[in-house]
Amino acid sequence: MIQLMPGRANHRAEMVSLMSLLEDLQKIIDDRNRVSTSPSELYCYSLDASQIEGMPDVVVRPLSTGEVSKILKLAYHQRVSVTARGAGTGLAGGAVPLKGGIVLDMSAMNRVTEVDVANLQAEVEPGLVRDDFNEALKPYGFFFPPDPGSSAMCTIGGMIANNASGMRCVKYGTTRAYVLDLEVVLADGTVINTGSRVLKSSAGYDLTRLMTGSEGTLGVITRAKLKIAPLPKARRLILTAFSSAEEAGRAVVRVLSSGIAPSACEILDRTTISVLKQCDKRLVLPDGDVVLFEVDGTEASTEEEVKGIAEACSPTAISITMAQSQMAMEDMWAARKLVGASISRLQPEKSRVYVGEDVGVPIKRIPEIIEKVQEISDDVGLPVMKFGHVGDGNLHVALFIDVTKRDQRDKLMEAADRIHVAALDLGGTVASEHGIGKARAQYMRRQHGPALDVMRAIKRALDPIGILNPGKLDLESE
Amino acid sequence: MIQLMPGRANHRAEMVSLMSLLEDLQKIIDDRNRVSTSPSELYCYSLDASQIEGMPDVVVRPLSTGEVSKILKLAYHQRVSVTARGAGTGLAGGAVPLKGGIVLDMSAMNRVTEVDVANLQAEVEPGLVRDDFNEALKPYGFFFPPDPGSSAMCTIGGMIANNASGMRCVKYGTTRAYVLDLEVVLADGTVINTGSRVLKSSAGYDLTRLMTGSEGTLGVITRAKLKIAPLPKARRLILTAFSSAEEAGRAVVRVLSSGIAPSACEILDRTTISVLKQCDKRLVLPDGDVVLFEVDGTEASTEEEVKGIAEACSPTAISITMAQSQMAMEDMWAARKLVGASISRLQPEKSRVYVGEDVGVPIKRIPEIIEKVQEISDDVGLPVMKFGHVGDGNLHVALFIDVTKRDQRDKLMEAADRIHVAALDLGGTVASEHGIGKARAQYMRRQHGPALDVMRAIKRALDPIGILNPGKLDLESE
Repeated sequence: MIQLMPGRANHRAEMVSLMSLLEDLQKIIDDRNRVSTSPSELYCYSLDASQIEGMPDVVVRPLSTGEVSKILKLAYHQRVSVTARGAGTGLAGGAVPLKGGIVLDMSAMNRVTEVDVANLQAEVEPGLVRDDFNEALKPYGFFFPPDPGSSAMCTIGGMIANNASGMRCVKYGTTRAYVLDLEVVLADGTVINTGSRVLKSSAGYDLTRLMTGSEGTLGVITRAKLKIAPLPKARRLILTAFSSAEEAGRAVVRVLSSGIAPSACEILDRTTISVLKQCDKRLVLPDGDVVLFEVDGTEASTEEEVKGIAEACSPTAISITMAQSQMAMEDMWAARKLVGASISRLQPEKSRVYVGEDVGVPIKRIPEIIEKVQEISDDVGLPVMKFGHVGDGNLHVALFIDVTKRDQRDKLMEAADRIHVAALDLGGTVASEHGIGKARAQYMRRQHGPALDVMRAIKRALDPIGILNPGKLDLESE
Repeated sequence: MIQLMPGRANHRAEMVSLMSLLEDLQKIIDDRNRVSTSPSELYCYSLDASQIEGMPDVVVRPLSTGEVSKILKLAYHQRVSVTARGAGTGLAGGAVPLKGGIVLDMSAMNRVTEVDVANLQAEVEPGLVRDDFNEALKPYGFFFPPDPGSSAMCTIGGMIANNASGMRCVKYGTTRAYVLDLEVVLADGTVINTGSRVLKSSAGYDLTRLMTGSEGTLGVITRAKLKIAPLPKARRLILTAFSSAEEAGRAVVRVLSSGIAPSACEILDRTTISVLKQCDKRLVLPDGDVVLFEVDGTEASTEEEVKGIAEACSPTAISITMAQSQMAMEDMWAARKLVGASISRLQPEKSRVYVGEDVGVPIKRIPEIIEKVQEISDDVGLPVMKFGHVGDGNLHVALFIDVTKRDQRDKLMEAADRIHVAALDLGGTVASEHGIGKARAQYMRRQHGPALDVMRAIKRALDPIGILNPGKLDLESE
């Protein structure tokens, strides 16, 4: 038997058997390979990259908006929950079906349906992998800027559902800034478009932005029109090192205030730097708390901007180094991308667990949160690395435990909780770009206060029976 | 007697007398100057810059969030409508109280409460005038980029409520891109914050963006935290002329695709140019359909960008001219700002009426909408000028009538309707930056289809009695 969503009092309350649901689904999708209840497959869909788990009853792989609409109509009438899923790279359980029901694996809807350079946009299906999208745009001289660490795997639909961003968002903005129009299937199967091909509009509620970041709780995205940006002609990298994270933070503000818009602005704290150095002897890294600036544009503009960054940093920097070659630059980015895994290379028994990993604070409070995180890590006795997108206040925290030791997991969860609370105390957010899902749902009231009730009212208005991705974002009213 | 909002069936249905409402309001605001029912004052609040009219019953000028909250609580319980208003510069009737009731004149809440350069943001009250805000930011070397034509009068609250933009949004984005957090008083008086001081967050529904552009129908904005941008060090202007609007449009796409982000990109069609020339003989203007590009940044970067623009335009341009001095540049912008009024200087009996003035289309369809608008104007026999923010597809249409002639008004309304329909047929929007209000409410269904029902559901969820700015955006279900 399948768990039914509570729904409204006057809704019919019969139970639905898995067998009858399957029969109905197969009437919609006449392809055995696309409707599955195989236990090994279900298991794969019960996880994402977080610690959250939940077993679906059935997995469906739709190929069209029409199929998604029919599936939702069915689920709505039978009060079965539906959780849409892209690549499952999420770090907060957003795509895990907590109440069982149907998982919609959107990964087969993965086409670039149009590249329209003359309108500076492209249209894609939600299952398209982000890096595949950029490969498709390259011949046109364009790219889609948001660049999460998982860009080789994660899907555009998942990025929109989480308002994903990454290193380049300090210059280019988050996913939100690129969504022009979403085709969305609502809980009852109705298909809407939230926007249009127009780059700018002021005509009613911004449903595009409401859907972006709503983690599949308001509708299922089946198509997206996205703004695209011209590929820059040149990039340069500059490494600046400071005697403290505080000095580093101040230098970042000086750079950003000077009118330079770096295409990346990453902090690697001194612990992170020392681990990286031990890990890869070839890397030429300065000592201290390091800020890595990247600029992009033309040869001339990047040269000018690098000079400007050096000027803004020089009063307090203990060292300023330019990456001297394309290769040195690539090495540096490769190191940055792998930073979270580097401790495991040194101490193979240690594993990084993604909890408390995505806090954000106002830029000027970055030094405070770094200090606070170190204090918590010392206190609970777990090693920690701190790095992140300092240009928009997003600190990634990597906590490491020996997964064979039971008590370490409790310490880990305690540390994560204290990190979340510390970020909120500094006027911050528990999630900067990884979403809330289930893993951070318990902080929604604390972060949003009475605004959570507004979110809940919107959820009830659009999904009265609560079939869409239930159990997430603390949206179900008590 | 005051018109009461219909509300829910079970809501008490007594009528409220103006006298008793006034008494209650005066208990909240013990200052006769801030609660008014004087007919001459009420008349001032019955209009904005559009053709829409509606008389309020009482005008209140709150000074604090607490007062706004108490007023809304009162209005909610008594089912009296509340329309918030900034400077009344709106062009669609958004601030006109169609159902009478209370007008909240927010213009006395006009302080810059904080400039926080280290977090790249400022906090303001909604009644602050946009240019006053920029005056306050200047000493810090920062500015608030959205720049509507009415920037000398319009308020930040009104800009947020309409998601206003202006010429520089092609580079800097619309108001939406700058709002970090709104303090909003909901229909029942509850005060919420939609965001925080963090530059980036992915933690629940984006209520900030939902409120931005909702034209006072979901809540009353009482405070805003806004991102600010560093003032550019240099600006340059380049005028390019083409043999057709189509060629002009194609050149714009070539420029934007080349990686140049102009800080303005304005089209002035050949009719507009010829009127401007007759109007001000000093202006050095080329013939043809003109695109005015502005770039900002450093001396070196703007020099490089101007070269890039010239290169991208030269294959098809009939002329390319640089503004040779600061003064030439200022003259050009002054002409651009006054373009809408210029016909009246030549033919004093003609007045510009703001209808059909804010359509937007996908960039590549700009030539088609220009042609279509000319066709409509020829057809109805009213003179027209066409200009606008071509870089984001926003065409401003200036229609002129002799207001002393009765039949001209009918022709005008016919032309406006046909222009709106033409924009929608081209996949566009009836409002790019001026909002929907009442003037364009009849196009909501056609533009949004079933998505309008989602907007209505959100409206009902947040304002069940319908007291907030009723009669706008076609939000009231049949």
